Amino acid sequence: MATELKSLNEECGVFGVWNDDQAAQRTYFGLHSLQHRGQEGAGIVVKTDEDRLIGHKGLGLLADVFDRPESIDELQGRSAIGHVRYGTAGSRGIENIQPLLFHYLKEDVALAHNGNLTNAVSMREKLEADGAIFQSNSDTEVLMHLIQRQPQAQFVDRLKASLRQIKGGFAYLILTKDALYAALDPNGFRPLVVGQLESGSYIVASETCALDVVGAKFVRDVQPGELIQIDDSGYHVMQYTTETQLAICSMEYIYFARPDSDIYGVNVHMARQEMGRQVALENPIDADIVVGVPNSSLSAASGVAQQLGVPDEMGLIKNQYSSRTFIQPTQELREQGVKMKLSAVRAVVAGKKVALVDDSIVRGTTSQYIVRMLKAAGAKEVHLLIASPPLKYPCFYGIDIEHTRELMAANYTVEEMRDQIGADSLHFLSLPGLIKAIGLKQDAPNEGLCVAYFSGDYPTALYDYEAGFEAPKTADDHVLAASANQPTTI
Amino acid sequence: MATELKSLNEECGVFGVWNDDQAAQRTYFGLHSLQHRGQEGAGIVVKTDEDRLIGHKGLGLLADVFDRPESIDELQGRSAIGHVRYGTAGSRGIENIQPLLFHYLKEDVALAHNGNLTNAVSMREKLEADGAIFQSNSDTEVLMHLIQRQPQAQFVDRLKASLRQIKGGFAYLILTKDALYAALDPNGFRPLVVGQLESGSYIVASETCALDVVGAKFVRDVQPGELIQIDDSGYHVMQYTTETQLAICSMEYIYFARPDSDIYGVNVHMARQEMGRQVALENPIDADIVVGVPNSSLSAASGVAQQLGVPDEMGLIKNQYSSRTFIQPTQELREQGVKMKLSAVRAVVAGKKVALVDDSIVRGTTSQYIVRMLKAAGAKEVHLLIASPPLKYPCFYGIDIEHTRELMAANYTVEEMRDQIGADSLHFLSLPGLIKAIGLKQDAPNEGLCVAYFSGDYPTALYDYEAGFEAPKTADDHVLAASANQPTTI
Amino acid sequence: MATELKSLNEECGVFGVWNDDQAAQRTYFGLHSLQHRGQEGAGIVVKTDEDRLIGHKGLGLLADVFDRPESIDELQGRSAIGHVRYGTAGSRGIENIQPLLFHYLKEDVALAHNGNLTNAVSMREKLEADGAIFQSNSDTEVLMHLIQRQPQAQFVDRLKASLRQIKGGFAYLILTKDALYAALDPNGFRPLVVGQLESGSYIVASETCALDVVGAKFVRDVQPGELIQIDDSGYHVMQYTTETQLAICSMEYIYFARPDSDIYGVNVHMARQEMGRQVALENPIDADIVVGVPNSSLSAASGVAQQLGVPDEMGLIKNQYSSRTFIQPTQELREQGVKMKLSAVRAVVAGKKVALVDDSIVRGTTSQYIVRMLKAAGAKEVHLLIASPPLKYPCFYGIDIEHTRELMAANYTVEEMRDQIGADSLHFLSLPGLIKAIGLKQDAPNEGLCVAYFSGDYPTALYDYEAGFEAPKTADDHVLAASANQPTTI
Amino acid sequence: MATELKSLNEECGVFGVWNDDQAAQRTYFGLHSLQHRGQEGAGIVVKTDEDRLIGHKGLGLLADVFDRPESIDELQGRSAIGHVRYGTAGSRGIENIQPLLFHYLKEDVALAHNGNLTNAVSMREKLEADGAIFQSNSDTEVLMHLIQRQPQAQFVDRLKASLRQIKGGFAYLILTKDALYAALDPNGFRPLVVGQLESGSYIVASETCALDVVGAKFVRDVQPGELIQIDDSGYHVMQYTTETQLAICSMEYIYFARPDSDIYGVNVHMARQEMGRQVALENPIDADIVVGVPNSSLSAASGVAQQLGVPDEMGLIKNQYSSRTFIQPTQELREQGVKMKLSAVRAVVAGKKVALVDDSIVRGTTSQYIVRMLKAAGAKEVHLLIASPPLKYPCFYGIDIEHTRELMAANYTVEEMRDQIGADSLHFLSLPGLIKAIGLKQDAPNEGLCVAYFSGDYPTALYDYEAGFEAPKTADDHVLAASANQPTTI
Repeated sequence: MATELKSLNEECGVFGVWNDDQAAQRTYFGLHSLQHRGQEGAGIVVKTDEDRLIGHKGLGLLADVFDRPESIDELQGRSAIGHVRYGTAGSRGIENIQPLLFHYLKEDVALAHNGNLTNAVSMREKLEADGAIFQSNSDTEVLMHLIQRQPQAQFVDRLKASLRQIKGGFAYLILTKDALYAALDPNGFRPLVVGQLESGSYIVASETCALDVVGAKFVRDVQPGELIQIDDSGYHVMQYTTETQLAICSMEYIYFARPDSDIYGVNVHMARQEMGRQVALENPIDADIVVGVPNSSLSAASGVAQQLGVPDEMGLIKNQYSSRTFIQPTQELREQGVKMKLSAVRAVVAGKKVALVDDSIVRGTTSQYIVRMLKAAGAKEVHLLIASPPLKYPCFYGIDIEHTRELMAANYTVEEMRDQIGADSLHFLSLPGLIKAIGLKQDAPNEGLCVAYFSGDYPTALYDYEAGFEAPKTADDHVLAASANQPTTI
Repeated sequence: MATELKSLNEECGVFGVWNDDQAAQRTYFGLHSLQHRGQEGAGIVVKTDEDRLIGHKGLGLLADVFDRPESIDELQGRSAIGHVRYGTAGSRGIENIQPLLFHYLKEDVALAHNGNLTNAVSMREKLEADGAIFQSNSDTEVLMHLIQRQPQAQFVDRLKASLRQIKGGFAYLILTKDALYAALDPNGFRPLVVGQLESGSYIVASETCALDVVGAKFVRDVQPGELIQIDDSGYHVMQYTTETQLAICSMEYIYFARPDSDIYGVNVHMARQEMGRQVALENPIDADIVVGVPNSSLSAASGVAQQLGVPDEMGLIKNQYSSRTFIQPTQELREQGVKMKLSAVRAVVAGKKVALVDDSIVRGTTSQYIVRMLKAAGAKEVHLLIASPPLKYPCFYGIDIEHTRELMAANYTVEEMRDQIGADSLHFLSLPGLIKAIGLKQDAPNEGLCVAYFSGDYPTALYDYEAGFEAPKTADDHVLAASANQPTTI
Repeated sequence: MATELKSLNEECGVFGVWNDDQAAQRTYFGLHSLQHRGQEGAGIVVKTDEDRLIGHKGLGLLADVFDRPESIDELQGRSAIGHVRYGTAGSRGIENIQPLLFHYLKEDVALAHNGNLTNAVSMREKLEADGAIFQSNSDTEVLMHLIQRQPQAQFVDRLKASLRQIKGGFAYLILTKDALYAALDPNGFRPLVVGQLESGSYIVASETCALDVVGAKFVRDVQPGELIQIDDSGYHVMQYTTETQLAICSMEYIYFARPDSDIYGVNVHMARQEMGRQVALENPIDADIVVGVPNSSLSAASGVAQQLGVPDEMGLIKNQYSSRTFIQPTQELREQGVKMKLSAVRAVVAGKKVALVDDSIVRGTTSQYIVRMLKAAGAKEVHLLIASPPLKYPCFYGIDIEHTRELMAANYTVEEMRDQIGADSLHFLSLPGLIKAIGLKQDAPNEGLCVAYFSGDYPTALYDYEAGFEAPKTADDHVLAASANQPTTI
Repeated sequence: MATELKSLNEECGVFGVWNDDQAAQRTYFGLHSLQHRGQEGAGIVVKTDEDRLIGHKGLGLLADVFDRPESIDELQGRSAIGHVRYGTAGSRGIENIQPLLFHYLKEDVALAHNGNLTNAVSMREKLEADGAIFQSNSDTEVLMHLIQRQPQAQFVDRLKASLRQIKGGFAYLILTKDALYAALDPNGFRPLVVGQLESGSYIVASETCALDVVGAKFVRDVQPGELIQIDDSGYHVMQYTTETQLAICSMEYIYFARPDSDIYGVNVHMARQEMGRQVALENPIDADIVVGVPNSSLSAASGVAQQLGVPDEMGLIKNQYSSRTFIQPTQELREQGVKMKLSAVRAVVAGKKVALVDDSIVRGTTSQYIVRMLKAAGAKEVHLLIASPPLKYPCFYGIDIEHTRELMAANYTVEEMRDQIGADSLHFLSLPGLIKAIGLKQDAPNEGLCVAYFSGDYPTALYDYEAGFEAPKTADDHVLAASANQPTTI
């Protein structure tokens, strides 16, 4: 059952630096720029001058975890890794916050992980049968137990052998007294980049925005199947497997990554703007103004406006302060929650035909509230343009997409969705349109993108998740019309 | 000197409701939408069924102060007032957080205040000489001591007599067991509106956005010199003085208020967009793209883009997570702080002539960092358009504008400023342009706006602040060219 | 009704020092030794080198309020007063924690108070009618408002005039930029002593144990009706009234004060031991061993053992760790609570006739549980000796004795009490025996002791409490046999 | 060296119950009575009705860790184990707080441990080499990894095999879905008892005082080498080894255990009183009064007083409130710290020859301060009687005795000690006197006591500690005169 199997290590952010005069502070800055990738917890581990690893971690936002100057100052050392964690119900204990730190009598090892293993449960069963005791519920730990059990003399060799045994999506950072390692899965589901400071020291991070904030220049994207070793002699690229094929998560471009980041050479903001242009090209609706749902859909909205040739207006305002309602989540109060986050500008939308732009639809309730809000503010018509195809299938590689049964598009036709949402029309970007808009142009299925949430064509076998897989109830074939990609299992 | 006299009650937000089945919860929602007006502290006071007043307040954001459901649930009652407070150094004690709650043996009174009194110090001196003991450093309390000392039998008469004795800018909410009062100063420096719930119950709030979030409809702007009494029989408008003249703070339109709010019939977002159009009209510069500083300048940027006829692009991204640096605020680290809040999108700005739009310049250092950031991201030219005139004079009516000596425009010419900031050109909106863009069109100097921070023409005598007033070092007459307004003392 | 009139300022501890190089730290040490006088809250105020007063206070034990080194370090200054506060339900707000600190534009004043005023409510009514606004529910503040309203030019004269207007029991410390004042009520209900450090600096404190802990030598007991002024020229004794008559609270000797303190020349431990001797002399019971209820009754138990000539044994052990039960306070769980605090040593009491010694009986339930516990541990007989007379009347001068209706001895005869408690016999010290045991030998009724809780003869008029006074239901005249003291109203 | 090898699991307290309708609450009560055995942290684990184990633990006192009713209420289940932990520098992380809880995919196991393993380091080395990953620094975990690696099918058989591999002192509680196990080391270094509730349910606890507080009757002391299994069918005694010899820690009787507890049939208070009698018998000094250092030495003091025939007086008072000084621990401030904890009663000791009684001397500084305090209060002479022999050797079985180099008696002769302490004479109990006073009378060396801290004769091989063992610098043979016991290695 997908539900029960669902493990941790959903979308997260990682950052590491080797040989820097302010390693913990630098990692703090880097993680801060990656905070959008995870808000449940954060942690930093540094290597001290005595070659031990020490760390500080906690639940909540980075600024809450590191809420006193001492919390950074005490992390004295020249190399560090850090992690921001995405929260999923049922795994909120401090023991699951990363980096995980393992103390052996003779040495320490720390791990930080972004992704989701598809064979974590079966691996854990085997390891427990062999005497392993786990301290967390997290996938991450499986790797450490594997390393500990490999016969090779060198750590790096044991690490490579272990990486070959785990399946799914992963971007791992591993800190030892000798080196900082970065490993990416054979499909490169998650982004991971190498950068360099002016001092010459190397950095590894989930997104390029983390390089910018610490003043590092971009060196290269880590490639599928690579193991990078950064140590006092520089950085070394190894290939722990050659059976690779790029399938970078398209949701990174659509929703998850920061607009100023570049992934495999494509700027995220520009990709979103192009998705907007493409959905408007495919659906040339009649509108007076374009309104994007702030903040995530503003890039796409500007593309829609350019394509339609109508003004891109600020018809929705986002409250920058976090909100809580405290009350039983009845439908009324969920709507109140949306009202506390977003508000319509009556003076902008009153009497207008609005082309409302959003990046995606998950359950559809928020869209419903926004449409209602715009109409209450006097909008004459609201046409909803979604700058990505309908989400119908779960992700098993690290994005916390709702179960099939909770995805609106997996249960209703586009017309049924439009009706529930209350929009005057509803339009999705086609899958070929998405691939074209991102424009990765890699020599791989879907130009190197994973689009399984839309098509159901997973790039790998599903291992432990195979049994629980649920198909969507709706077909909506037209959306997938141009999609001819075949699943590629490695 | 102005510094020492500087008292509390800078910009804040207030919200009150009478006879509502969920008064505390409603006030929480309303205050949340006013959080931008003050982040230092928050509080809510309710009238219980036993006609006593009880409250909860604390330092920090509303969601931190009310961090448990009980903190709202315990505030049982059908009427409430609340306050969010803007922080100023040296007055951060809990005793200054509002509403202030006064317990007498026989009854309770609560006060919440937005504004700044210009005769608070001299009034306090007189009151202390007469035996008054103050519990806070706040202006707010002066009113309570005055009320306590008036001879009239009725509370409302003592209140009116007291309001006539205080000078400056103020929007007061006062809760007693019998009524909710709202009072505005004779110039209406601060915004204050009345709204009505579907149930018929009345609300008073600093901005209309607070009406929207609780589902109330707008009834009217409170007018200068008015005292509104809301009780079980409805709402009653009284005039505690007839010597009034509207001078609503222009900074509310420029920077402070929320874009979806309307003040005296003018929508804030639309006013800002028009300021952008106007500054571009006055300064038709040559640019490839327009980039606004998020979030406050995005409205103005869209106006600039429309006027110049070039695309409005997302060249700067704002990190939605709060940041702290923990380190001595050297210049290097202040710049790091800006980098953690804002980042440039290289793919957007590289090789472009950028028209950068900001709402105002205070010290100028942030502008300098942003220009540097855009150039580092490859911008060919950066032309800075400020959608308001140069800030040269302090505000004494409730906005925490820096002292004259810290205002960049009070100390340097526009050319000197441009040079320090590193922009290729620097342009301000003219004062007449500002007045025209807002378009209040009231029959009063400056069409009903207070523009003293730009012109030095204060609408009232300065009372306690007179002695410490400092003139700016620069004249920059061209900016004020069209300004012929005379100070109007009431 | 006594209940509603019941005000704050029950038993508390005060400490002050003038001109000391570590005033805050010294006050912390002093307050720590007075912690037994109040555990609800604590605070310290210091006079800075700039002649302003700053402070830190909070709810809970001293060590919780001052839980970081900075909390003491930040209180830089050479003079200080501090307070530990006894908690009473309904007044637990931070605003009631002392010292109360009053900021005027020109100077600051701080007050700390131990005692209870009997005319606080009527004074407050008058003051409020005259415009006074109170920040707390506390008696303490009445004095400040009185001072503020006196016509005299000098602070000290206004203070004296104010002290003459308040009634009841009080020991006040007042800190200004010029001096530290200590004032005692005309009956000296509460203890207050002056001490001197080796440096020559003076100290005022509730008990002599606070002098010992800071290394100060005892100088003198403050006498009824005295106002002591300590300033840079030394200490000065003034008499604000000559209508005085000592009536120091006998409960200080019986239960409240620390055994190592001396009050008016009588050591508390020695007085208790003598009470034990006296109750055994009056009641020469047959016992194998004497067992005191730890810790408060161990002094009395040793006196009983000496008088009876049987061993004083450790038959009850007190758990030094605080306990909570978390559960609805059913009778079963109150008994569990006692079991968590006290345990019987079976090896000591099994098969023995036990003379159990306690200092007093309030509700009687704890006595009942202890007797049951001893019998369960095998005691053959348990004879309960109380080293004070039966408590029948409330105290209005600062000790939080339960209302008449809750005092066991006010509702039942000695035989009824014995039966409920389950002891084999029950004996109280006679009132003359108590007076003799303490042995104050002052030329005043009851040798200078207040014994109103036993006799109902209050040394002063009751003012605001007069109306609500309740007489006990039982007479038990034999206990008061030797008592011929008359009430003395001043 | 001993220092580095020093591992965790010093003195602690454990409590477990099987099949009880309020298991968590009962365990809370039991642990509260064992709080004296460990104040660094506490935890409780319960078995839920679904046969999973859940727990709550934290740093600090029990009442701080379980500070809300929910913290107990959420631990729903009918069986539980709990632990209070003694703190040692360097191991204060939450990961070391017990019970340790291990989640496997199929079942859960929880462990609580009192004691110290002497081969923990070498066992851990072997286990790590075999792939084990430890989550704590604690000895406790070694057992779990051993269990996980045994070949037997049944858990109980794997447990027995594992117990045979660990050396040193240990009292383990182990909770699984099927049973509660209690295991004691082959020498029975630590106390452990079985009790029974009125309901028939069984309890295991470190001391009998924990049985009393929950209303359970004593069943039996767990014997060396026993494994007790408590399950739904009752309790079962197994012998995992027959090579046993009782050597119960004599420090339990001298200092550590609670006076109301019985250990192997000997009441702790009575044993201490007898130690007092014995040291006075061996040293019949001339004194006017006897004064015990509260609270730990009051039992011994009463024995001294009985033997000497002089009164046992309360010459020292203990402040019941915890104290902190916040300042660099200079000698002056350590002395201040003692003054905050203890004070002399001048009225008792002035002019007297005092026989001061303490249970032991570790570093000697506290004794020095107390003697000084008594003399400052006027004592004419102070003769110090220590109711145990000189502490010269470290403990490796679970008591945190300071390293040899920090033990006063390991570095100085008795006369040198007396001189440093400033006493008029100094006397220790002889080793034969100690053994006689406790009177265990078991057929084993030292009548079944471990007295290694006095004699250096360790009952077992020292394994990992062998290399770092340091001999004391002084011989003081007279003290050990009667000691002829030989080390007995099992």
